[in-house]
Amino acid sequence: MAGSTFGEIFRVTTWGESHGEAIGAVIDGCPAGLKLSEEDIQPWLDRRSPGRDDMSSSKRRESDRCRILSGVFSGYTTGTPISVMIENEDVDDSDYDPDTFRPGHADMTYQEKYGIRDWHGGGRASGRETAGRVIAGAIAAKLLEELGIEVEAFVQSIGEIPVEDNKGYLEKYLKEIAKAGDSVGGVVTCVIKGCPAGLGEPVFDKLDAELAKAVMSIGAVKGVEIGAGFMAAHMLGSQCNDEEELNAGGILGGISNGKPIIINAAFKPTPTRGNARHDLCIAPRAAVVVEAMAAITILDMYYRNMHAKL
Amino acid sequence: MAGSTFGEIFRVTTWGESHGEAIGAVIDGCPAGLKLSEEDIQPWLDRRSPGRDDMSSSKRRESDRCRILSGVFSGYTTGTPISVMIENEDVDDSDYDPDTFRPGHADMTYQEKYGIRDWHGGGRASGRETAGRVIAGAIAAKLLEELGIEVEAFVQSIGEIPVEDNKGYLEKYLKEIAKAGDSVGGVVTCVIKGCPAGLGEPVFDKLDAELAKAVMSIGAVKGVEIGAGFMAAHMLGSQCNDEEELNAGGILGGISNGKPIIINAAFKPTPTRGNARHDLCIAPRAAVVVEAMAAITILDMYYRNMHAKL
Amino acid sequence: MAGSTFGEIFRVTTWGESHGEAIGAVIDGCPAGLKLSEEDIQPWLDRRSPGRDDMSSSKRRESDRCRILSGVFSGYTTGTPISVMIENEDVDDSDYDPDTFRPGHADMTYQEKYGIRDWHGGGRASGRETAGRVIAGAIAAKLLEELGIEVEAFVQSIGEIPVEDNKGYLEKYLKEIAKAGDSVGGVVTCVIKGCPAGLGEPVFDKLDAELAKAVMSIGAVKGVEIGAGFMAAHMLGSQCNDEEELNAGGILGGISNGKPIIINAAFKPTPTRGNARHDLCIAPRAAVVVEAMAAITILDMYYRNMHAKL
Amino acid sequence: MAGSTFGEIFRVTTWGESHGEAIGAVIDGCPAGLKLSEEDIQPWLDRRSPGRDDMSSSKRRESDRCRILSGVFSGYTTGTPISVMIENEDVDDSDYDPDTFRPGHADMTYQEKYGIRDWHGGGRASGRETAGRVIAGAIAAKLLEELGIEVEAFVQSIGEIPVEDNKGYLEKYLKEIAKAGDSVGGVVTCVIKGCPAGLGEPVFDKLDAELAKAVMSIGAVKGVEIGAGFMAAHMLGSQCNDEEELNAGGILGGISNGKPIIINAAFKPTPTRGNARHDLCIAPRAAVVVEAMAAITILDMYYRNMHAKL
Repeated sequence: MAGSTFGEIFRVTTWGESHGEAIGAVIDGCPAGLKLSEEDIQPWLDRRSPGRDDMSSSKRRESDRCRILSGVFSGYTTGTPISVMIENEDVDDSDYDPDTFRPGHADMTYQEKYGIRDWHGGGRASGRETAGRVIAGAIAAKLLEELGIEVEAFVQSIGEIPVEDNKGYLEKYLKEIAKAGDSVGGVVTCVIKGCPAGLGEPVFDKLDAELAKAVMSIGAVKGVEIGAGFMAAHMLGSQCNDEEELNAGGILGGISNGKPIIINAAFKPTPTRGNARHDLCIAPRAAVVVEAMAAITILDMYYRNMHAKL
Repeated sequence: MAGSTFGEIFRVTTWGESHGEAIGAVIDGCPAGLKLSEEDIQPWLDRRSPGRDDMSSSKRRESDRCRILSGVFSGYTTGTPISVMIENEDVDDSDYDPDTFRPGHADMTYQEKYGIRDWHGGGRASGRETAGRVIAGAIAAKLLEELGIEVEAFVQSIGEIPVEDNKGYLEKYLKEIAKAGDSVGGVVTCVIKGCPAGLGEPVFDKLDAELAKAVMSIGAVKGVEIGAGFMAAHMLGSQCNDEEELNAGGILGGISNGKPIIINAAFKPTPTRGNARHDLCIAPRAAVVVEAMAAITILDMYYRNMHAKL
Repeated sequence: MAGSTFGEIFRVTTWGESHGEAIGAVIDGCPAGLKLSEEDIQPWLDRRSPGRDDMSSSKRRESDRCRILSGVFSGYTTGTPISVMIENEDVDDSDYDPDTFRPGHADMTYQEKYGIRDWHGGGRASGRETAGRVIAGAIAAKLLEELGIEVEAFVQSIGEIPVEDNKGYLEKYLKEIAKAGDSVGGVVTCVIKGCPAGLGEPVFDKLDAELAKAVMSIGAVKGVEIGAGFMAAHMLGSQCNDEEELNAGGILGGISNGKPIIINAAFKPTPTRGNARHDLCIAPRAAVVVEAMAAITILDMYYRNMHAKL
Repeated sequence: MAGSTFGEIFRVTTWGESHGEAIGAVIDGCPAGLKLSEEDIQPWLDRRSPGRDDMSSSKRRESDRCRILSGVFSGYTTGTPISVMIENEDVDDSDYDPDTFRPGHADMTYQEKYGIRDWHGGGRASGRETAGRVIAGAIAAKLLEELGIEVEAFVQSIGEIPVEDNKGYLEKYLKEIAKAGDSVGGVVTCVIKGCPAGLGEPVFDKLDAELAKAVMSIGAVKGVEIGAGFMAAHMLGSQCNDEEELNAGGILGGISNGKPIIINAAFKPTPTRGNARHDLCIAPRAAVVVEAMAAITILDMYYRNMHAKL
């Protein structure tokens, strides 16, 4: 069975290829009565656009104007599926070649899996696929806001350099990488505040397990940490005691404990070989995708937890 | 909705509290015609028993004799659900106290979520819950064997010490930790060989996403990496090119590429405060659980991939 | 993927063959805090036992003592999976023969599907499988009671004879059928009272659709009606107007309207050829199974509806 | 959780309100390599259009031109989600009134469930919703064709009149009903030929159970029968023996037996009160919807059965 749907109660199904006619998402399970319009979604989409700031550099301009096709009536959600579509406009595929499998890309694995692939611009494996996630994330975040839950993701480090206190240096660093035709990895941190205790469904659908899946499903992510993450593996129990809360990262036994939830996501550098245009560093554009996936997950787990006790 | 079921086609549902009457698993979706008896499962269960070697030290002796109650007829699976049970025998709960919430444990979050908890020995949050996973893992591994796929997990490091080339030193190190009443974290690495290209269901149920969930759902895991993991976040694209295969860890675009799949799992140290008996280091006993979860996931994704093309 | 699990939020997984070691059910998603013991379940199991009254006649005596193995602590549910088991005692398989495919039974289709079958007493296709449903139904009914919802099923007709006002005649009729070694079909009606408006999830998981699946999944059921059922197909709209409520059967547009919900289930006669012992009429014993499936479905849809609006 | 998705391996998610901007479906799990274009889908959509023949009479003209937005590349499916959209054109809502709840319609139950409703033309409860099902059904039928499986649905009876041998009389009958401003119910029969033995997943996802849900989820259906259906409830076992095959309707123990599968669906008459325009008899237009739902179900169960044995 295919994997284009995420979530149990708040569910998103995404569709669309990077160089196809359109891309979109269907959100099922959004409660009726939420005030919603394109204006709630558009700023989220703009955040993931290329060329937004100096830290990313894919040259493609995406207008990405979204259009709500169903599920909203007189400005409010009706409880029926919300279909949102973005028509693809700038689909220049002159850089792509059907017979070339770009090293480090998913070209080859898609070909092996399906026996056919849309070779224009990476098809479904393109970063453009994340637009559907961001649409659903914008709606989830709006629902979370009403519950007093806040999700925020930001770039923690680029290459080996922490972003904090190094903005000026980073700018120079990235320029050099760009000049060399190279790329660089990065870490995105996501913090969730205001999340009540009790979220997470033992034993398989623990909150950290669902978040790990959500974040790892984003292209280019190679690692996920909750709280202390891999550092915890290097510590003694007595050391952990001192900063227990920080180490737990807001989750104990797979259930939120009411403290801020902290997630780290490791993004690998964009492959550079055989790639005429590529993101210098994916992390800055990807932060909003991490935020979206975290928001969808937390909202879904919030709804799932409503059945825990009488 | 609760979270005691894992997998889509090969599905396991686990049940049971550490100090209840019994624990067990129901495996639905195991194909008919597999030779299967308790002898296939018991060695897996023995591997996760405490006191098996010098690296772990929980004093409880578990006999853990499993019993197949359904789904097998004349030594072969029939395609109907396989129910396997282990009766709990040694359930000494004298160390536990209903009014104490042990720091760093799930006592408090379970109480907050459910408003009630089985305080005997950690209930469902106990490591004993993993027996059900290991039962299903043993069956999955047997099916994978017929497909030429091999899953193996081992302890990579304990605290800051890599296991390889340090066995003698580690023994001394662990003895000291035990004497101090302390505990230590560790990293378990899992390698999957013989996995064909094509496994993984974009865009949400990518192979790495499903593996991340599977592994993160194991208690005490705080981080998961595929291939280069967090190291990739610190690298340049040009550096990645050199060891592309190793860095990818067998997965590109969320789909297996036919190379060995490499997963790292970070285990935090067992909390020591308010804990009369505890594992010195959970990693050695947990390796078989990582192996089980990886085997279940790979098998399930193998079955799911059978529908990818005509 | 196999089909031994039913329900989304309140979920039951059943297992066990009629002549195996045991049969049972795992209920996941039962909220914590429900007072529960074997005494709540046993009366339900007793209702489906053979030889309980004059209307059924399978000679096998089943003691069917159930045992709760997990999910209950100090007399209350804990929110973790509830495992309930019945050990099989009277497993006389002398009437069965591995090489005989009894006409009208599932012997042949199981053999074709799985390539192997447990030929002792019908294996998983036996009516005994319904014990697991009844266990879950008893728990669901207890939860529904707290919500003021009542589910009741009864035999509407046996063969062509309505039960009401014909009890004495029916007794004579059934004795004659028994003497002739024959069997007879029947209709079971299920009425759900106190169900609030709003249950049912358009467009595929409508309340009537879920109930139809639930009831049709019971062995020997060949037809399901909601409200007027097939009679409605023979009517004019103007005729329907007069008794609109009765015709609707409590469901409009797939959503409950707050009126009593009425379901009819048609049970075929037990096949008599090649069948040494068989039920004279399955309907009387099956009523409790219909009640159980309806209760599970209504409860699950009640929980699902909790997410419909802000 | 909402219910806009149907199927496990071949899955369809539908969206859209009758008087909204557009309606559509996303089909996930269609294998790669199927030749597919709008021409495969359009004839199916045309079959459900109003005013196609004399037996139905809703006056709305729907052009219903579908457009494939994703999942097809160079004329072949790619294994990624297929998004198909129909823009709504003729959306005259002058007949509708926000403050009127039409008797016998879902207006009231939608309002109760969601606290808000799209009162233009019935919103999601409109028959127009079935366009999404028909889109998916067209694709499923094309895949079934390659497997040698054929699904066909037709009107069995209108009111109390069997269609066969009564065409001329029926025409007169319907004209009279139209003149009286009345409507009438009907029965649609669906026959599935070429279906191999083995389809159906005991014990809950039996083939008949899944078909019952699929068909009962169509608006206006009040009853579903497999094979002899309710007639079987009135028969003796000895009578059944004679026409066993016909009575079974192609399914035994919830598993297909290789014979033609026969399903009856009872459609109630369209409510006439408070309804300016309505279908005279829904059955003729609904036949293609029954066909679509049966095709989707059989295909999905075909894929699910692929995992039954080694």
